[in-house]
Amino acid sequence: MKPIYLDNNATTQVAPEVLEEILPYLSTFYGNPSSMHTFGGNVGKKIKEARAKTADLLGAQPEEIVFTACGTESDSTAVWAALRSYPAKRHVITSKVEHPAVKNLAEYLSRNGYRVTFVPVDKLGRLDVEYLYHHLNDDTAIVSLMWANNETGIIFPVEEIAAEVRRRGAVFHTDAVQAVGKVPVNLGESVIDMLSLSGHKLHAPKGVGALYIRKGTKFAPFLLGGHQEHGRRGGTENVAGIIGLGKAAELAGERLEEENTRVRALRDRLEETLVQRIPNAIINGDRDHRLPNTTSIAFEFVEGEAILLLLDEYKICASSGSACTSGSLEPSHVLRAMDVPFTAAHGSIRFSLSTYNTDAEIDLVIEKMPQVIERLRKMSPFWAEKAAANVCQIN
Amino acid sequence: MKPIYLDNNATTQVAPEVLEEILPYLSTFYGNPSSMHTFGGNVGKKIKEARAKTADLLGAQPEEIVFTACGTESDSTAVWAALRSYPAKRHVITSKVEHPAVKNLAEYLSRNGYRVTFVPVDKLGRLDVEYLYHHLNDDTAIVSLMWANNETGIIFPVEEIAAEVRRRGAVFHTDAVQAVGKVPVNLGESVIDMLSLSGHKLHAPKGVGALYIRKGTKFAPFLLGGHQEHGRRGGTENVAGIIGLGKAAELAGERLEEENTRVRALRDRLEETLVQRIPNAIINGDRDHRLPNTTSIAFEFVEGEAILLLLDEYKICASSGSACTSGSLEPSHVLRAMDVPFTAAHGSIRFSLSTYNTDAEIDLVIEKMPQVIERLRKMSPFWAEKAAANVCQIN
Repeated sequence: MKPIYLDNNATTQVAPEVLEEILPYLSTFYGNPSSMHTFGGNVGKKIKEARAKTADLLGAQPEEIVFTACGTESDSTAVWAALRSYPAKRHVITSKVEHPAVKNLAEYLSRNGYRVTFVPVDKLGRLDVEYLYHHLNDDTAIVSLMWANNETGIIFPVEEIAAEVRRRGAVFHTDAVQAVGKVPVNLGESVIDMLSLSGHKLHAPKGVGALYIRKGTKFAPFLLGGHQEHGRRGGTENVAGIIGLGKAAELAGERLEEENTRVRALRDRLEETLVQRIPNAIINGDRDHRLPNTTSIAFEFVEGEAILLLLDEYKICASSGSACTSGSLEPSHVLRAMDVPFTAAHGSIRFSLSTYNTDAEIDLVIEKMPQVIERLRKMSPFWAEKAAANVCQIN
Repeated sequence: MKPIYLDNNATTQVAPEVLEEILPYLSTFYGNPSSMHTFGGNVGKKIKEARAKTADLLGAQPEEIVFTACGTESDSTAVWAALRSYPAKRHVITSKVEHPAVKNLAEYLSRNGYRVTFVPVDKLGRLDVEYLYHHLNDDTAIVSLMWANNETGIIFPVEEIAAEVRRRGAVFHTDAVQAVGKVPVNLGESVIDMLSLSGHKLHAPKGVGALYIRKGTKFAPFLLGGHQEHGRRGGTENVAGIIGLGKAAELAGERLEEENTRVRALRDRLEETLVQRIPNAIINGDRDHRLPNTTSIAFEFVEGEAILLLLDEYKICASSGSACTSGSLEPSHVLRAMDVPFTAAHGSIRFSLSTYNTDAEIDLVIEKMPQVIERLRKMSPFWAEKAAANVCQIN
């Protein structure tokens, strides 16, 4: 039986069209795009095509795209490029709810000679933009903010902020790993300097990402080596991954409308029904500025990991927090930054959909979830306490 | 028509067994190994298997393997790990003939607060080991030397040097991208601290590499992010690439003997016949300490790139210098370091074989090469001059 896969912010299925496109480059056409011979050169042409398609999805120019191994590498490349390009500036601004790719890098910088401001969010997960502007100063090399949050789907007004950051003379980078392919991105109409994306979040294989670098932005490579990517990223290209990303970008462009209508409706139906049918279930964060595919729901007085285990029995795949922080017992730093109470943060589940999800799948989740939560709450001492308190109140 | 592919030091064909192994992970089993659910967990198990196989090929322990995106990333990770682990030490030793992945990083370091010693080689490409030992000192953080040269195939005595470097208190790293799978590597019997390898040089796909880090070696991650690779390398794993590398490592172990008998014999027949049949053809470097699959031959008084163009007409794929430096008009830094005369360096061609090459292919190259060289020399003013001089001498 196929899983009911509602964990698309962790990773996505490779689109069959993508697999078809890359297969020849994993078999017959194995040349190195840097080679002089036609056999290699033909691979180079195909990479050029993928670069154009990736640029198209972003409203960018092909020469503004550098292929990398993942979103994390794109993020590191962007932040280090700004720091190396403006060595006199020793201040970095980011938020309290970034993905570990930026969060852990920012924490490393704060221990190694840089001053880092972590901008807070409110209870709905909305960025405190005034706080950001207040801390922006002549020493700020780079402001790095996610476009959309991986756990809650909440969207930051990055285009607006980029304009102010530019006016104040710093570089603006956005980790748009979760946004690209889910919401319209048109870099031609913004002043965002750098943008990270990841292939496997939009139905390309894992192991490929890209960094957009606006023409004219000062740059220094993170991965030094050969002349690949016009000297901006050394290392033999992940040919199949890049070709896959190109095709996936093309598909994402075509499917953007479906993502924002059918997928959004599926997500809305899922969360509204669950919140209706399950007591003490609360949607985390600002519902008005969110990715169309994501919902984070707090089921109070139960453990998120226990929910996932029971869902696993029905082959329903979801997540507590992000995949990149799972394995840790601490509640999500994102929900903590939003001041979500401990009992709710611990029982929070993220469902993240894609265009491959169906009505029937959502029906099954809607059927199973109330049973799962009820079963767990029966075992929960906190829930028993709460129920007792309620009885007292009613009496 | 299939190409006659003699450019295996640039990249290799993905082994059919490797492709078969990875296909399910590009389609059905697309989970994120970091996810809590079984669907992701099963992918994690397969990565564990690949790690064990990769370790096996090196005579290492699975936990000593960190997967990366490429040889270049492995090299950068190793060098930065040593520099960050020993921040007081500001000296680096490498050779004059390294791959751009180490060479360009070393040059960057020499411009950014580090002292770098580039150890020379002799006319046969052999490392000046005494020079290295002489410059090794208490300030040396790391010695990074390639195991085998990508252009000439010449092997450095890295195991021996590692022992002396350890005695003198520095970290030893080897870029073994060209050696792994071609010569026996047994890290259990050496004191090498770190070793880089690349998947696509041994019939895995492009976009995956590994870094061996000996247990107990001080380490700091290069790519900061999620908890992947036990916190030693952030970023979602290139699942298909890693699984492919595991299978390729298994195959490489099995094929090591064939590489050193049948492939070696093919290479020897190719180079000996060419040198016999073509005047002014010289094998570059030390023939006694070389990879079994590589030959670099200087055809004096012709242009390497012109040779490649004519070979391309016969679908014969070879290389002048490395793929990673092609596109530049300068002669190879490796051959320059060996003091190969300009007229010979410019006409040098690398043939690099693999277990997929056949006798018939080598026959065809042996048939075509003399015609190619003759055709080009007829057009070469340098060759005409030389011929005239010879005539004079005979007269």
